[in-house]
Amino acid sequence: MQGNQQQQAYDRGITIFSPDGRLYQVEYAREAVKRGSASVGIRTADGVVLAADRQTRSPLIEEESIEKIHEADEHAGIASAGHVADARQLVDFARRQSQVERLRYDEPIGIETLTKRTTDHIQQYTQTGGARPFGVALLIGGIEDGEPRLFEADPSGTPYEWQAVAIGGGREDIQDYLEEEYTPEMDLDGGVTLALEALAEGTDELDAESVDIATVDTESEQLQSLSGEEVTDYAAEADLGGEDDE
Amino acid sequence: MQGNQQQQAYDRGITIFSPDGRLYQVEYAREAVKRGSASVGIRTADGVVLAADRQTRSPLIEEESIEKIHEADEHAGIASAGHVADARQLVDFARRQSQVERLRYDEPIGIETLTKRTTDHIQQYTQTGGARPFGVALLIGGIEDGEPRLFEADPSGTPYEWQAVAIGGGREDIQDYLEEEYTPEMDLDGGVTLALEALAEGTDELDAESVDIATVDTESEQLQSLSGEEVTDYAAEADLGGEDDE
Amino acid sequence: MQGNQQQQAYDRGITIFSPDGRLYQVEYAREAVKRGSASVGIRTADGVVLAADRQTRSPLIEEESIEKIHEADEHAGIASAGHVADARQLVDFARRQSQVERLRYDEPIGIETLTKRTTDHIQQYTQTGGARPFGVALLIGGIEDGEPRLFEADPSGTPYEWQAVAIGGGREDIQDYLEEEYTPEMDLDGGVTLALEALAEGTDELDAESVDIATVDTESEQLQSLSGEEVTDYAAEADLGGEDDE
Amino acid sequence: MQGNQQQQAYDRGITIFSPDGRLYQVEYAREAVKRGSASVGIRTADGVVLAADRQTRSPLIEEESIEKIHEADEHAGIASAGHVADARQLVDFARRQSQVERLRYDEPIGIETLTKRTTDHIQQYTQTGGARPFGVALLIGGIEDGEPRLFEADPSGTPYEWQAVAIGGGREDIQDYLEEEYTPEMDLDGGVTLALEALAEGTDELDAESVDIATVDTESEQLQSLSGEEVTDYAAEADLGGEDDE
Amino acid sequence: MQGNQQQQAYDRGITIFSPDGRLYQVEYAREAVKRGSASVGIRTADGVVLAADRQTRSPLIEEESIEKIHEADEHAGIASAGHVADARQLVDFARRQSQVERLRYDEPIGIETLTKRTTDHIQQYTQTGGARPFGVALLIGGIEDGEPRLFEADPSGTPYEWQAVAIGGGREDIQDYLEEEYTPEMDLDGGVTLALEALAEGTDELDAESVDIATVDTESEQLQSLSGEEVTDYAAEADLGGEDDE
Amino acid sequence: MQGNQQQQAYDRGITIFSPDGRLYQVEYAREAVKRGSASVGIRTADGVVLAADRQTRSPLIEEESIEKIHEADEHAGIASAGHVADARQLVDFARRQSQVERLRYDEPIGIETLTKRTTDHIQQYTQTGGARPFGVALLIGGIEDGEPRLFEADPSGTPYEWQAVAIGGGREDIQDYLEEEYTPEMDLDGGVTLALEALAEGTDELDAESVDIATVDTESEQLQSLSGEEVTDYAAEADLGGEDDE
Amino acid sequence: MQGNQQQQAYDRGITIFSPDGRLYQVEYAREAVKRGSASVGIRTADGVVLAADRQTRSPLIEEESIEKIHEADEHAGIASAGHVADARQLVDFARRQSQVERLRYDEPIGIETLTKRTTDHIQQYTQTGGARPFGVALLIGGIEDGEPRLFEADPSGTPYEWQAVAIGGGREDIQDYLEEEYTPEMDLDGGVTLALEALAEGTDELDAESVDIATVDTESEQLQSLSGEEVTDYAAEADLGGEDDE
Repeated sequence: MQGNQQQQAYDRGITIFSPDGRLYQVEYAREAVKRGSASVGIRTADGVVLAADRQTRSPLIEEESIEKIHEADEHAGIASAGHVADARQLVDFARRQSQVERLRYDEPIGIETLTKRTTDHIQQYTQTGGARPFGVALLIGGIEDGEPRLFEADPSGTPYEWQAVAIGGGREDIQDYLEEEYTPEMDLDGGVTLALEALAEGTDELDAESVDIATVDTESEQLQSLSGEEVTDYAAEADLGGEDDE
Repeated sequence: MQGNQQQQAYDRGITIFSPDGRLYQVEYAREAVKRGSASVGIRTADGVVLAADRQTRSPLIEEESIEKIHEADEHAGIASAGHVADARQLVDFARRQSQVERLRYDEPIGIETLTKRTTDHIQQYTQTGGARPFGVALLIGGIEDGEPRLFEADPSGTPYEWQAVAIGGGREDIQDYLEEEYTPEMDLDGGVTLALEALAEGTDELDAESVDIATVDTESEQLQSLSGEEVTDYAAEADLGGEDDE
Repeated sequence: MQGNQQQQAYDRGITIFSPDGRLYQVEYAREAVKRGSASVGIRTADGVVLAADRQTRSPLIEEESIEKIHEADEHAGIASAGHVADARQLVDFARRQSQVERLRYDEPIGIETLTKRTTDHIQQYTQTGGARPFGVALLIGGIEDGEPRLFEADPSGTPYEWQAVAIGGGREDIQDYLEEEYTPEMDLDGGVTLALEALAEGTDELDAESVDIATVDTESEQLQSLSGEEVTDYAAEADLGGEDDE
Repeated sequence: MQGNQQQQAYDRGITIFSPDGRLYQVEYAREAVKRGSASVGIRTADGVVLAADRQTRSPLIEEESIEKIHEADEHAGIASAGHVADARQLVDFARRQSQVERLRYDEPIGIETLTKRTTDHIQQYTQTGGARPFGVALLIGGIEDGEPRLFEADPSGTPYEWQAVAIGGGREDIQDYLEEEYTPEMDLDGGVTLALEALAEGTDELDAESVDIATVDTESEQLQSLSGEEVTDYAAEADLGGEDDE
Repeated sequence: MQGNQQQQAYDRGITIFSPDGRLYQVEYAREAVKRGSASVGIRTADGVVLAADRQTRSPLIEEESIEKIHEADEHAGIASAGHVADARQLVDFARRQSQVERLRYDEPIGIETLTKRTTDHIQQYTQTGGARPFGVALLIGGIEDGEPRLFEADPSGTPYEWQAVAIGGGREDIQDYLEEEYTPEMDLDGGVTLALEALAEGTDELDAESVDIATVDTESEQLQSLSGEEVTDYAAEADLGGEDDE
Repeated sequence: MQGNQQQQAYDRGITIFSPDGRLYQVEYAREAVKRGSASVGIRTADGVVLAADRQTRSPLIEEESIEKIHEADEHAGIASAGHVADARQLVDFARRQSQVERLRYDEPIGIETLTKRTTDHIQQYTQTGGARPFGVALLIGGIEDGEPRLFEADPSGTPYEWQAVAIGGGREDIQDYLEEEYTPEMDLDGGVTLALEALAEGTDELDAESVDIATVDTESEQLQSLSGEEVTDYAAEADLGGEDDE
Repeated sequence: MQGNQQQQAYDRGITIFSPDGRLYQVEYAREAVKRGSASVGIRTADGVVLAADRQTRSPLIEEESIEKIHEADEHAGIASAGHVADARQLVDFARRQSQVERLRYDEPIGIETLTKRTTDHIQQYTQTGGARPFGVALLIGGIEDGEPRLFEADPSGTPYEWQAVAIGGGREDIQDYLEEEYTPEMDLDGGVTLALEALAEGTDELDAESVDIATVDTESEQLQSLSGEEVTDYAAEADLGGEDDE
């Protein structure tokens, strides 16, 4: 109760520091990320995999409408976890950045540049009053100068580059699995399988049909969504598909 | 009491995160939606049905003036549940978007585009200070590229696409009924009947005369309101009309 | 006391949602309406009646200066209940809307259009910070395309169309009486008598001399105030005039 | 104490509604009016009388400098009660309105128009945040179209027209006296005497020398201040002048 | 303690009314005035005297730097009591008003006009949010149309004209002395002596050397400061100069 | 505890008055000044001395980088005590004022003018919302019209002129010493020695090497910093240099 | 508990003073710095060393993406500790300052100038409302006029110049080690070794591979990053590399 009272003092107004130097509103935004279903990103030798678990409230919902993987530009995808409406704002921001870059320099935006412009935008919502932080984490993946790149943007506005990473609900379990199983030499095919296996670690029951997967390979440099059939095939191959994996 | 005190801390100011990552003001806005009478949307093979229960305070009120289904454009309707005055603001916003699209591209706005512009507008009221979220949910239905589409916009600003969906008071019961009875192959006629039956599940006593129904079929691509007589006929056919359906 | 504490949390700042989805400031504004003396509107076959009870603090006050019925335009009147100074603001807004319509289209503004512009204006004071809602309800009546129309605008900014309606103190009793006695076939004469009888239901002692009545008939399409004498005659006819009617 | 706590909740921020629909800041502003010494206005057949009791803190103060009656325009005076510095702001506002009217239409501003422009200005300070209401009430009197008019503007921004009225400390007693003694047929002379007698009812000891009186008669249509001698003569005639009148 | 809690509720935000109609921030600003050492103003037949007690923290401070009497214009002086930095802002405001008047009309500003422009400026800091009231009172004295005038401006923004007046610490005792000893017929010489005697009433030990005196006489119409020697001479004459006068 | 609670009420928002007329945020800013190490200013017959104790956290810090004495202009120096970052803002402000003066009038700014422009700037941070007061006091010294001048600017924005003065930690002890030992006839040499001795009074252990001293003499009219060697020589002469002086 | 309550009063709003003159939000920002891993700066005879410990959450993270050392300009580097997203904002600010300087004067910006522009920017976030302070400390090192310079910028906006300094977690232990071991005569090689040894003092287990080191030498005047191999070589030489150094 004492703890509750102390915390309450820091979340009434704008994003301010607590006595131990934490930004509570940012940490609560991280909780909003954990409330969302998980997304996974994997960088392989020949491309980047983005995979997201779309948990649906009802069989009547159109699963495709639950947006978890977005196109930022032809060569760059964004997977999100957390507050969906917030994710849409950030994806729109990232798209505008990509367009501006193409207009100005007639070149695709670098994945690192795209990430850092987005995280700088996120940071401002954690320092300036009059708005709350974004309740969402992003995985930004694509090809830059022929190389696969994979970044995470968290609610504090910090950019991280990863070989393989998970965001959202069950992150710890999924990340543990990735750390055990990931090898930098794996190809895109292996990356997709690993992504599916990892997502299965983070939830009681993974429905392969509700997983959304997209890749950007170094050859095409194009974000490509896997069809539902393709995803189910990979899941079958990985011996997944709805049974309890825990 | 402890719970009350904890909650109070998060709803005094603008929309901010609670320690478990929820946006209370948005969740309270969802309660405002539940306080409204229900609306139902059903996508059939040959069109979309929007149906709304207009509960009236007095026999002297003009039922038509209780606005639950609105025209966004010739080919697109919006059913609402929750705070009526807020719904009017969003419908006005959607109409302006539709007009701008026609002026710029000389084409009807896509139902998905219309929905996402509206949900992005809703999201901003959940992040930026100086205003409260909208206390209303919308069902946006119509024809896009010859296909029926049906979307929900909730107070967080998240868009969902549905085959069949309910918003407002009694949503759970109505949605359960829809999940049991809905088939994608049903035609518009069957959709109207299902909508009436579903609405009857969500309330103790459904008065068919107080139900407002509109459809957009793939042939005419025009939002058309059913007359009171037509609604009563459908209700009679479905063996409804005021008796307790629970 | 617990209840008091809980409520206090929601009325300190701007208009925000309570955990059960209500907008307390708007509900308190409705209480401000109830604190005012009643107004009644009745739509008849050949016109609309607006009637208002002007309760005076002192015999030395000029009753005519207690503004309860206002002219919005030649063909449209507004009766109010609640905070008088707020009503003046809204009437001014409605007048400007009417003038703009005449200037732009050289036509009288529709009663429904006039009502909805006004309720949209009211709604904004319930959503955007920096101001409180309007503490007043309005009855807007007049002739549109040759037909009598009667609307209510409440503090939430919701428009309702009515056959017969009461706002302000004693609303419940007056509305009950209207529901029992109103028939859509009654003429303007019968409407005036019913309005007086209904107002008498809502108060211990109705002083006919303090009642302000105006009508808009379909023939003249002009808002016309009844003289004090005419009101007294109607009251005498209806066997009213100061005796306790309860 | 319970009452105190409940009230405190409503006066911390801007002017908002209490659960029973009252605007506390406006009601507290009315208390500020009661803290001021009284002013009286009387409309007679041939003119309007404004009278104000100037209570002085010290014999060394220049009584004329305690401004209670102000000239709004040649034909219109304003008596105030309450917060003196606030009154000056409103009188300045009224003067500017009068000047603008003369510049635009080359005519003196109507007393009713002048009052309503002023009360609309007052109302805005009760609805929009960032400022407190005016802690003052005004009596605005003068000649309009050859007829004497007398209005009250209260801190809520409501205009009232009166035959005879009191504002400020002791209002109830003074108003009771006016209701007993006032007749619409009295002439300006009788009005001045009645004003002095009425003021004497509201205070333990009225010092005639500290009473400020001004009139606007229908003949001259000019605001004219009575000299100290004239006031003393009237007081002597009325058998007043310092003795305890209670 | 109950009293403390009640008061606290009214001084957290901007200047708002208490339930009994008082503006606490303005009353607290008056306390700031009382915390300052006293100033006295006396209007005589042939001029105005301003006198101020400069209490010094240390013998090393330059007494002249403790500004208590300021020149607003050649013919007008201002003595202050209270928050010194606030006084400087108001004196700057008054100087600009004087300059503007000379530029526009090529005439010295009237003392009454100068006072009222200043008090209107002060008033705005008591009504509009975003700033606190001024913690200072002013005595504004000078010659207007050949006549000596003396005004007080208090923290509420109310102007008063005086024959003789004190502001600041010990005001009550000094004012009592002035009321006993002041006569309107006294000349400037007598006024200076009376000012010194009065200041001595308000403090345990008046150090004549720390008193600052300035006069504006009707002949020169120029603000003139008395030299330290002149002040000491007057003090010696009045039998003052450091001994305990109580 | 009661006292704590009472104080808390006044420091939550902007700078407002307490019931006894004090500005708590300004008084707390004075505490920030006391938390800084001391600075001393001494006006002698032939110049002004500014001396500051730079207490260092670590032997590895560059003592010169601990800015305590700044050049405002060629002929004017500023010594500070308190919040270093705030001091830099005010010194920048003073420098811009000096430059503007030279550009406009081609003359060095007067020391008094420079001080008052700076204190007026400081005052505004104590009255207008949206910022806290400056947590720093300044000593502004230099030559004006051939004469040495020395001013203090405190966090309230009040200017004081001094013969000799201390600000910052241990101010009371240092000021007492100055009052005992200062004579107006002392020359710059004596002033430097006195400054060192006085600083030694305010601290347990004065390290001569950490003292920063600058002078402006009437002949050169240039701010000149003493070298570390010169300071040590003066300290040795004054029998100071690290031993406990208390 | 009493202490907790007292503190809570000061961190709800903007950055304001506590009764003892401290700026809590700034002090809490210092705690945010301590929560970050350490950075070290060392000024040697022939250049400046910046070294930072990049603690990684996962072996799959790209260590280079954890930005601790940034290029401000060719000749100037910035090491940070604390809130990473905040550091990025300040580095961007510093880069823009450097570019503006080159554009205006065609010269590299001075290290002291660069630091002070940055600290002035930081200070404004501690005084003006509407934003929180930066939760980061910076070490700014480079060559200015051929000389190595090393500055610290802390969250209060105070600039310090150092010979050798640590920021971030374990600062005290690292600084103690630097004070013991640092000599101004050491060359860049020795500086790199000392930086590694010092960082090892501040943590239980220093992983040489996670240390980022950059230097600016007086010859090249270019910021140069050491390769991972070079760092490991230095660490081996210094007998470091993962074993517990405590």
